[in-house]
Amino acid sequence: MSPAPKPWGGRFSAEGGRAAEAFTASIGFDRRLWRQDIAGSIAHARALARAGVLTAAEAETIIRGLEEIAAEIARGDFPFRTEYEDIHLNIERRLVEKIGPLGGKLHTGRSRNDQVALDMHLYMKDEIRTILAEVAALQRALVDLAERHLDPPALMPGYTHLQRAQPVLFSHHLLAYFWMLERDRGRLADCLRRTDLSPLGAAALAGTAYPVDPEATARELGLAGVYENSLDAVSDRDFLLEFLAAAAILMVHLSRLGEELVLWSSAEFGFVEPDDAYATGSSIMPQKKNPDVAELVRGKAGRVFGHLMGLLTVMKGLPLAYHTDMQEDKEAVFDVVDTLHQVLPVLAALISTLHVRRERLRAALAGDHSGATDLADYLVRRGMPFREAHEVVGRVVRHCLEAGRALEELTAEELRRFSPLFGEDAPAVVAPEAVVAARRARGGTAPERVREQLARARQALAAAGGPPPERRDSGAGPR
Amino acid sequence: MSPAPKPWGGRFSAEGGRAAEAFTASIGFDRRLWRQDIAGSIAHARALARAGVLTAAEAETIIRGLEEIAAEIARGDFPFRTEYEDIHLNIERRLVEKIGPLGGKLHTGRSRNDQVALDMHLYMKDEIRTILAEVAALQRALVDLAERHLDPPALMPGYTHLQRAQPVLFSHHLLAYFWMLERDRGRLADCLRRTDLSPLGAAALAGTAYPVDPEATARELGLAGVYENSLDAVSDRDFLLEFLAAAAILMVHLSRLGEELVLWSSAEFGFVEPDDAYATGSSIMPQKKNPDVAELVRGKAGRVFGHLMGLLTVMKGLPLAYHTDMQEDKEAVFDVVDTLHQVLPVLAALISTLHVRRERLRAALAGDHSGATDLADYLVRRGMPFREAHEVVGRVVRHCLEAGRALEELTAEELRRFSPLFGEDAPAVVAPEAVVAARRARGGTAPERVREQLARARQALAAAGGPPPERRDSGAGPR
Amino acid sequence: MSPAPKPWGGRFSAEGGRAAEAFTASIGFDRRLWRQDIAGSIAHARALARAGVLTAAEAETIIRGLEEIAAEIARGDFPFRTEYEDIHLNIERRLVEKIGPLGGKLHTGRSRNDQVALDMHLYMKDEIRTILAEVAALQRALVDLAERHLDPPALMPGYTHLQRAQPVLFSHHLLAYFWMLERDRGRLADCLRRTDLSPLGAAALAGTAYPVDPEATARELGLAGVYENSLDAVSDRDFLLEFLAAAAILMVHLSRLGEELVLWSSAEFGFVEPDDAYATGSSIMPQKKNPDVAELVRGKAGRVFGHLMGLLTVMKGLPLAYHTDMQEDKEAVFDVVDTLHQVLPVLAALISTLHVRRERLRAALAGDHSGATDLADYLVRRGMPFREAHEVVGRVVRHCLEAGRALEELTAEELRRFSPLFGEDAPAVVAPEAVVAARRARGGTAPERVREQLARARQALAAAGGPPPERRDSGAGPR
Amino acid sequence: MSPAPKPWGGRFSAEGGRAAEAFTASIGFDRRLWRQDIAGSIAHARALARAGVLTAAEAETIIRGLEEIAAEIARGDFPFRTEYEDIHLNIERRLVEKIGPLGGKLHTGRSRNDQVALDMHLYMKDEIRTILAEVAALQRALVDLAERHLDPPALMPGYTHLQRAQPVLFSHHLLAYFWMLERDRGRLADCLRRTDLSPLGAAALAGTAYPVDPEATARELGLAGVYENSLDAVSDRDFLLEFLAAAAILMVHLSRLGEELVLWSSAEFGFVEPDDAYATGSSIMPQKKNPDVAELVRGKAGRVFGHLMGLLTVMKGLPLAYHTDMQEDKEAVFDVVDTLHQVLPVLAALISTLHVRRERLRAALAGDHSGATDLADYLVRRGMPFREAHEVVGRVVRHCLEAGRALEELTAEELRRFSPLFGEDAPAVVAPEAVVAARRARGGTAPERVREQLARARQALAAAGGPPPERRDSGAGPR
Repeated sequence: MSPAPKPWGGRFSAEGGRAAEAFTASIGFDRRLWRQDIAGSIAHARALARAGVLTAAEAETIIRGLEEIAAEIARGDFPFRTEYEDIHLNIERRLVEKIGPLGGKLHTGRSRNDQVALDMHLYMKDEIRTILAEVAALQRALVDLAERHLDPPALMPGYTHLQRAQPVLFSHHLLAYFWMLERDRGRLADCLRRTDLSPLGAAALAGTAYPVDPEATARELGLAGVYENSLDAVSDRDFLLEFLAAAAILMVHLSRLGEELVLWSSAEFGFVEPDDAYATGSSIMPQKKNPDVAELVRGKAGRVFGHLMGLLTVMKGLPLAYHTDMQEDKEAVFDVVDTLHQVLPVLAALISTLHVRRERLRAALAGDHSGATDLADYLVRRGMPFREAHEVVGRVVRHCLEAGRALEELTAEELRRFSPLFGEDAPAVVAPEAVVAARRARGGTAPERVREQLARARQALAAAGGPPPERRDSGAGPR
Repeated sequence: MSPAPKPWGGRFSAEGGRAAEAFTASIGFDRRLWRQDIAGSIAHARALARAGVLTAAEAETIIRGLEEIAAEIARGDFPFRTEYEDIHLNIERRLVEKIGPLGGKLHTGRSRNDQVALDMHLYMKDEIRTILAEVAALQRALVDLAERHLDPPALMPGYTHLQRAQPVLFSHHLLAYFWMLERDRGRLADCLRRTDLSPLGAAALAGTAYPVDPEATARELGLAGVYENSLDAVSDRDFLLEFLAAAAILMVHLSRLGEELVLWSSAEFGFVEPDDAYATGSSIMPQKKNPDVAELVRGKAGRVFGHLMGLLTVMKGLPLAYHTDMQEDKEAVFDVVDTLHQVLPVLAALISTLHVRRERLRAALAGDHSGATDLADYLVRRGMPFREAHEVVGRVVRHCLEAGRALEELTAEELRRFSPLFGEDAPAVVAPEAVVAARRARGGTAPERVREQLARARQALAAAGGPPPERRDSGAGPR
Repeated sequence: MSPAPKPWGGRFSAEGGRAAEAFTASIGFDRRLWRQDIAGSIAHARALARAGVLTAAEAETIIRGLEEIAAEIARGDFPFRTEYEDIHLNIERRLVEKIGPLGGKLHTGRSRNDQVALDMHLYMKDEIRTILAEVAALQRALVDLAERHLDPPALMPGYTHLQRAQPVLFSHHLLAYFWMLERDRGRLADCLRRTDLSPLGAAALAGTAYPVDPEATARELGLAGVYENSLDAVSDRDFLLEFLAAAAILMVHLSRLGEELVLWSSAEFGFVEPDDAYATGSSIMPQKKNPDVAELVRGKAGRVFGHLMGLLTVMKGLPLAYHTDMQEDKEAVFDVVDTLHQVLPVLAALISTLHVRRERLRAALAGDHSGATDLADYLVRRGMPFREAHEVVGRVVRHCLEAGRALEELTAEELRRFSPLFGEDAPAVVAPEAVVAARRARGGTAPERVREQLARARQALAAAGGPPPERRDSGAGPR
Repeated sequence: MSPAPKPWGGRFSAEGGRAAEAFTASIGFDRRLWRQDIAGSIAHARALARAGVLTAAEAETIIRGLEEIAAEIARGDFPFRTEYEDIHLNIERRLVEKIGPLGGKLHTGRSRNDQVALDMHLYMKDEIRTILAEVAALQRALVDLAERHLDPPALMPGYTHLQRAQPVLFSHHLLAYFWMLERDRGRLADCLRRTDLSPLGAAALAGTAYPVDPEATARELGLAGVYENSLDAVSDRDFLLEFLAAAAILMVHLSRLGEELVLWSSAEFGFVEPDDAYATGSSIMPQKKNPDVAELVRGKAGRVFGHLMGLLTVMKGLPLAYHTDMQEDKEAVFDVVDTLHQVLPVLAALISTLHVRRERLRAALAGDHSGATDLADYLVRRGMPFREAHEVVGRVVRHCLEAGRALEELTAEELRRFSPLFGEDAPAVVAPEAVVAARRARGGTAPERVREQLARARQALAAAGGPPPERRDSGAGPR
């Protein structure tokens, strides 16, 4: 094949012959942006027509050509060529093949710098909306599971430092993740707001010299606003960094949940068992059932953190405006988007099908001394300063450990050896159900509080709206 | 000194003798939180009084004790002790020294887990508000400098790939940074919103068993809301991660500006000269004037990215609820806060005192062919498709390079050797002033657009409000 | 105080008045390098004497002055001044105060660029050697503990995916960490080799114009070689990056060990209990004993990873030669050095005093089906392909799970229901002791293999040499 | 297609039906390891034969089957199936299809845990050796270019803080990169040494129960040693982390060189011009020639740092032994390997074809005052302490700046106004050629020193050996 003419060949002495072509070409990964690129080009053609740069008929021909190309790509028979560098030029060259030199008018008043930025804005907007819905679906799975174990409430040890601390409702523990994810949705929604901008009209860097109206084009593309500064428009990658940061924090949460599922699936904890559909066995050890979905969710955090670090590094210290370094944004963002699209649904499904061993949860509370705080609180109610009460109960616990007794077995009389303030009603306060019921302040683990909490969670989800929106790239075609 | 009694000693066999004390103690760095800790304790004392756990007189005594302690710390004569582990216990033990066993009642219904989380919320809220004001001050410096060079407008080359691309206004270039910082303020404000919550009432992890009203306490502390879930309240560090992420993106911007200031200060560019107060010399080379403030601003990005990565790593995969790992949040966040408090004002001052060499900016436009796009646009207006026009002008540029000519020197006749469409008015379009004036679409570099842009920037700043708010820790005392 | 004259003031119009002084000064942290700085200056004074730039008497006076300064700093009464920017100038100015203008001759043929690089090389060399000894001490603690539980061998479940997989010796598990640390020592030693170089003679960047002999100076400082290129000498920070990377990998290992200690200390595992000296309690829950040393070791990984990322970011894309950005190397490296000096000894002590519950380790093997692989191996020895045998035993395990039986309870007859190849000797192969004994290949967990392994570990330690070397900064003085 | 039977199906109730299969399967990326996997399996078959587990005939049949599979994959007609999860099982299942149940005997005494670790060791060993050769090729390009400009020597400004500091040889500047890369080769070689180990024999985690000889198998595979501990063997990813760290430091160097090439290609510096084959133009600005290869090399640093961060995060805090999280190692490592295979050759080619504008290099020295240090040194030779001389020359420079004079224009008489020590020979010392010639100490920029340096560089390269080694995966087949 003879070398393909470049869109910038005129100034160069060697026609073609670009040894580094394979290195700098981005078509291998930016082809994923084809829908956005064509949508942007159609809007730009209309803008040029409104500006009098194209006639209505010319614009119509161009748009029809672009739609044919969209169909080709969707069908999978578009001839992508590396020598055309990127998705923008691949489509434009194909347009010229289809409709002749008129195709060359489409790039009027536009540069690849604002074009690729626009594609990324449109892409990110689509993807964030889908991810928001996927997060909500995971939240729903958590709320559903929490609800299933709320009446009657399943009790389990609450942990700090991985030591049993105080009993909590299993539902309360699950809902903690709900609220983490609720903040994630907040962050993603804020990012979406800052993404919802059109850079079109910035052209290469200084603004377009054609009488187009960037705000009208933005409206046509469903974008909420435009950049105030053309240099900023083409060199801004904040919306991608912010997305990666929001994704990294989201992955912190999912990795924590993944870790707990791995712990809980161990023989030692034995609190849950993943459904066979969400576990694997061993090629050598016939008895194994590995919670590998939960592990892999946890492990995927590394990849997302890495991409955030990578893009921060790329952008650090770059002078204005566009540099080829910025081309490195795409694979990082695409991989994080794909990772979230994998991780969120699989985790929701794992949660929805999780086998919970309520009896193991409850059994873990036996003899764990996790009512000790309430015994101290008892003394406080009898007038002892908390710090002193803590000391007294600490001695009670040491006694239990040395004597191999459980706290809940001690009689009032035995307790009185440690303090005369212990009355006959003292032993009752250490029962897990009593401990849980006592935590009645807002946000606490008392059953009625958790029920209210669950209702608020359902409300938040209702506000989040229904199923995921239609995705621009939900159809066929290459990713 | 005999070993200090621990607040948790009762259960332990060895009184004191904690070999690892120096390793796990946090008083070395968390003493910075003393104002927040005392404010939180005063609010908690009032809450206990409202709940009937303390009498009004007891609460009053405690509050007076705490106020005395605050005065001691502010005066610098508070006896911080490592064996009291952290700021919370240092203050509490001092309180007991001052007011006796009653001091031990303050910890009722509260754990260090919700206490430290509250301190960090209060601290972060103070600091973000200050940082918002510092960002606004830097924006103001940029707007002021942009305004000084707008009438008459200073022209300079706009760059892509560090190659001269198209002329832009110096003010336009500066304002690009304004809008980056505007987004930073947006992110910080969103983070502030999610920070403005009280975890108090969560106690250790399960909620408090005392009839306190977390919402009332939050209101008293000026916080906008409470956590919905106690486990989440004590194990959430999202607000710190989000702050670090926002700071990292901010530092991307500052590093880009730093890089440009370094480039522009070089002999080769020669566009600006930092004031002597913001540069240093060399210990060996007497002629040197180094833009070290700009360099160090750029370099500080690394530290901020590192702390973000560090805390993401710490939080990854931690089961609920509190773990000692989380104690690692503080030094990272404190260092980033301090870094921003250093970097933002010094950069604002550097910008405010910057010597701009307008003549060097303008001279850089001579012979740089940066009117080439407009020559192509000229052909487009005469009906040639843009892609073809680009080719033609590419050949014109190659001719200039080979013949050592500047584009703006070519006559209409010379141009016509490349295309008959070039008319007598063609040479005029390549003059930098003409090129700049042509970019009249919203966001473009035409002087009237930049003036509007500057007005919008001033408006945004006006909405941001006045000088930095009073800082809780603006007084004396250790940091 | 009147502004301090700068070492580079001549070219500057404003005498003093450096508004950014506090921002760019490094004396706040580089004072730690005082021993190295003085050692380097003494060697440089001798080099200047050999080169005839100083007389022997002048060199002697300078050296005596420097030694006095060293004594002052060690005593803690050296007047550090921020306006002298860094440790180099603080010392030099003090020297001039002491011995007059002759002190100004010391900077001949030297720049702060090669001076600070030399200081860091000397510092790093000292610290890496200490860290190597600290790693060896931790290895020794592991080997000692492994040996204590080898005769008779303590058995425990080996895990994959946190599921019980096959029984292993507790000693075998501990020794896995020994070999990780052995590789860490290899990496640190390789880094030390590449650190052991003198940059002196490079001066500012181009080499010194005085007839000094860089190799002789290096020898005098105990450094193994010199840089081949002066530009490289002053702009190389590889040895710091490599150290940070080695430290990060080391922290991966320590965080894994920390995680296991946390898991093993949980009520659910109950395998070990940290000594009271290496645990803390709770301020609210009297029964708690938290493995906070192990947690904090794990958490410190984040900080070290962060500093590595930070310095990589700082160095990325810096043109030659020195830039002020590089000053950011120090705090990162110092913090990692301090972290390792904390973490390694505390972990060694924790291991040395660890209470191991051998009975809990052994009990965890009951009914865990971890002999399943050996049952499959039994069938293989009878001629069945492994994949088929795996299937058969998988069915046996499913039967056990459904019937609530332990694998080791099944009789030969019961086993024969799954395959006729099971003989009377089949049940015996699933006993943990038998399983362990069978793994006799090099590196396996059979007791005799582990004994050999332990002997090899002792050998490696013996080769590592004795106690930590004397540290250059082991004396008094500020850090 | 009916669900594929799993190698671990026996214990599971639901045959097949693995909803999460697509999430956890690794065949999409680990197919790249097919050569290593087959090589390892052949060696394992021989080991089993030696151990008497297979007959010689069985081993022969298995090996022939594996060789056929290798040929199929190389030809591109191997039917990879996602439901077989990974490359190991894909190959094994195909083997059973080909040779019947005997194929099932291959997995005897082996687990996927040691199998995948072996594959990665073999892969990494191949790739590091290739990368070492690629680094050497880039070094050769630098040395060649340095040599071309050494006789007569091309002078240029040496920079610190991007300010002209002292003149250096262009060759000296280039050779600085040579030595950075030389250290990179050292680090990679050290990593190779620690990679050159066989984990085979570790089986799942506890060691194999078959009488195989791991050392013999290692020898057969050309690996230098074996792991001492089976748990370590299957859970060690140090060699990958160390490779990523070495790659990250290498990328620091390449990004610095990339940055310099971008700077030097700017109109302002104008020191070099990339060949047209290693630059691109603009789609909108016909005059542009962008150094995009150099930019992209610089940008690729981000991706490599990110992968290092990612894998550190994945490994942090994982208990022993294997977890599915570790599967995340592969894509990170593969991407870094591919990146280096791209970046190193393209940069070598860019350097080899670089157009150097010697006249621009030399012209940049005019009037840059970079002889100022030598003027101070002149005074030192006349007896003035350096610090005082620095002050005097600082005043000379200030005079030049104010009077618009170049340092090299000043006469002896003019100089004497600043100090009577300036003799008639003083002006001569500031000529760039004199400045360069004066830096004669080892490592300095004097031409004779640079010639020696270049000779040492050539020697180091000669020791590095010839062209890249044959690569195991140099043939056809999927990557």
